[in-house]
Amino acid sequence: MEEREFFELITDLLAANKLPLLRKLLEESNVVDIAVAASNLTTEQLLRVFRILPKDISSSVFSYLDPDDQTRLVESITDKELEALIDEMYIDDTVDFLEEVPANIVRRVLARADSQTRSIINRFLNYPEDSAGSIMTIEMVELHDHYTAKRAIEYIRETGCDKETVYTCFVIDAQRHLIGSVDLKDLLFCKESETVGDIMDNERALISVTTTDDREEVAEIARKYDLLSVPVVDNENRLVGIITIDDIIDVMEEAATEDIEKMHMLLPSEDDYLKTGVFTLVKNRIVWLLVLMVSATFTSQIITGFEDKLAAIAGLTASIPMLTGTGGNAGNQVSSLIIRGIALGKIGITDYFKVLWKEIRVAVICGGALAVANLGRMFLVRLVTGGEVATSVFIVTSLAMMLSVIAAKAIGCSLPIIAKLLKADPAVMSGPMLATLVDIITLLIYFGLANVMLVNV
Amino acid sequence: MEEREFFELITDLLAANKLPLLRKLLEESNVVDIAVAASNLTTEQLLRVFRILPKDISSSVFSYLDPDDQTRLVESITDKELEALIDEMYIDDTVDFLEEVPANIVRRVLARADSQTRSIINRFLNYPEDSAGSIMTIEMVELHDHYTAKRAIEYIRETGCDKETVYTCFVIDAQRHLIGSVDLKDLLFCKESETVGDIMDNERALISVTTTDDREEVAEIARKYDLLSVPVVDNENRLVGIITIDDIIDVMEEAATEDIEKMHMLLPSEDDYLKTGVFTLVKNRIVWLLVLMVSATFTSQIITGFEDKLAAIAGLTASIPMLTGTGGNAGNQVSSLIIRGIALGKIGITDYFKVLWKEIRVAVICGGALAVANLGRMFLVRLVTGGEVATSVFIVTSLAMMLSVIAAKAIGCSLPIIAKLLKADPAVMSGPMLATLVDIITLLIYFGLANVMLVNV
Repeated sequence: MEEREFFELITDLLAANKLPLLRKLLEESNVVDIAVAASNLTTEQLLRVFRILPKDISSSVFSYLDPDDQTRLVESITDKELEALIDEMYIDDTVDFLEEVPANIVRRVLARADSQTRSIINRFLNYPEDSAGSIMTIEMVELHDHYTAKRAIEYIRETGCDKETVYTCFVIDAQRHLIGSVDLKDLLFCKESETVGDIMDNERALISVTTTDDREEVAEIARKYDLLSVPVVDNENRLVGIITIDDIIDVMEEAATEDIEKMHMLLPSEDDYLKTGVFTLVKNRIVWLLVLMVSATFTSQIITGFEDKLAAIAGLTASIPMLTGTGGNAGNQVSSLIIRGIALGKIGITDYFKVLWKEIRVAVICGGALAVANLGRMFLVRLVTGGEVATSVFIVTSLAMMLSVIAAKAIGCSLPIIAKLLKADPAVMSGPMLATLVDIITLLIYFGLANVMLVNV
Repeated sequence: MEEREFFELITDLLAANKLPLLRKLLEESNVVDIAVAASNLTTEQLLRVFRILPKDISSSVFSYLDPDDQTRLVESITDKELEALIDEMYIDDTVDFLEEVPANIVRRVLARADSQTRSIINRFLNYPEDSAGSIMTIEMVELHDHYTAKRAIEYIRETGCDKETVYTCFVIDAQRHLIGSVDLKDLLFCKESETVGDIMDNERALISVTTTDDREEVAEIARKYDLLSVPVVDNENRLVGIITIDDIIDVMEEAATEDIEKMHMLLPSEDDYLKTGVFTLVKNRIVWLLVLMVSATFTSQIITGFEDKLAAIAGLTASIPMLTGTGGNAGNQVSSLIIRGIALGKIGITDYFKVLWKEIRVAVICGGALAVANLGRMFLVRLVTGGEVATSVFIVTSLAMMLSVIAAKAIGCSLPIIAKLLKADPAVMSGPMLATLVDIITLLIYFGLANVMLVNV
């Protein structure tokens, strides 16, 4: 069924008050589809849908709603319903929701949560925004190494029902230290009498992170090791939570989006474009636009200092945008590759000289080819338009293009790695800085060559 | 243990010929770490490591090796070992490996596979490169709706051992039509006597893809619905395979990388930067550099046509890079957001007018702020350097900046959506095209204003 049809079916059934039929339809539908449809319902309709659903489904739908819809729903439900909702939701979904909604909603939710839940939520809300702690959940299965496989499966059956995942279980000792992990699959396929200790992955194979680790690093680890969930430990290696693959995927997509934003001179934002207001968009953009515009004072001054010669020699000015454009493109090509390589953990600081040497060779070939093509292009244009630009200007332009491509490639591969070395963000430091630097260097090369080679014109 | 230490421990144990100890170490280690270490071993060392490992671990390590290392290992092992390896590996890993290695290796592998495996591999190798079929596996658990939960779990225990995942099982009818899916979790938590048909997600909640669907769409669906595996059906809705989350994550990362490459005027490449040769890098870059350089003929011609005025009026030329730079930045900011929004399925063609209206408002504010800042900047520079540029030139420059930012934002949000409408790639069409278009329009605005407003100078 199409999104639109599904939405209309829901509103029709609501209008006709055919609630048992609606309930059946929704119970059989995917919770994500219900959440998508819900965002187009009126608050009154949304409330009715929420109330006819069984608690487990309604809480699941709730966790997929946009913050706006979560807010209007929570504003409409009774305290008792709110209590039941918090009780049913996974802690990490509750925390996600609380991080996005207005403060009065947060206060009301905390007031209705039992004291244990409240203290857990408060702890989670205090983890730094980009930390592993902020995206973990505490609803995991904990086993002991002396359990037999049979006992472990029974234990999972008894306690696993409200856990976020049961497919990877973590093994702890009496002091809650993480000592291993075991897949449900392995518990099913081994002999019933084998112990968890026998079949678990022990410390050497076990991958874990700490609450303060950066969540992008966690995502990187999960990707590298193909993990369905990552255990989170405190400084004494005691298990405090797990991060599940669905949250890891969100972190990956957000990290890629953030890098793209930074590379394109935007302040990163977690909000969806369509839901972001005009002033927030302006705020995210104006900073870099202003910085770069002001830093263009350098290029303006360089040109001003050369104004007489530009006025005297026909054809010099015309190539300025082409030269800065080509230099910028050449630099961007390599910086984007290096930034992405660093983000995915495939390029490190120690690779610098290897990268630089590679780029210089690439640049010489690319720059040479461009210079030759440019010579041809300029002769052709002169032939067609009958212009009067001197051949020596063509040579200066082509030579400048080649040198500026080489400089741009060298800068483009150096900036992200220098940023990484300085523990700055490669995407921020190289995207915006690159543009200005390459412009300046390109103009200096161009005018320098013109000064030397065109003195007698 | 650090990567380096782990590698040295392996080579030390090999040198001392302490094979039982090495075997124990490796058995307790993570297969991904072994694969990373293996790429630095000599072929002779690699072969020894491969041979002392139990078959299930060695085949798992093999699937994580780089194609280069897979090739040199396969070239060294006996036919019998190769046969055992193929037998142990998952089909999708075998196909991944065969897609990357030289043809003689492919021939040898196919010759050693049994006829059924060979025909499956051949079928997989024939799926289009970016299709769902090319990344699926056929090692899934298939249940029937009349099975009780008890019977289903027994069936999984009996047959699931060599399946790629048992956590989501798919339900088929007698004609292999996909009729539902059931999580192992639900089988564990329900009554033993309930049937699979009772507890499965039925067709309405079930998400599936076909073999020819684009794999990026599959990744998008898995992300949206938080799926651990996606069932793949043929045109008659018969189950032919599944795609597991680890492969989906790889597709997501590759898709983001590809978009970044295309936005930065590179031909997309699947190879790691550090492993790509200089000539391949040149080939991936030179195309767009040439196209854009040649298309800069337009900007050159525009400037040439205006050369007399540029020579006559002090201060006009100096602002050209600043204006094209600011326009380019402003356009890039919005196009990158829209391209990413389209890639993540958050912005569609029908949102166009909403986006355009939003961008025009953002552009007026940003452009206005930039124009004012630029006026201030130019006055300040004149004050400090004692230049002789006329105030009217400042006004023309600032006005041109504002208009060019508005044009750049409008073009930047339109190009990706037009590309989507024409079923072209938003990232390719807008990244490279945007730069040239914005340059041209900025210069036309600038010189147009100068012509009208500076006639009497």
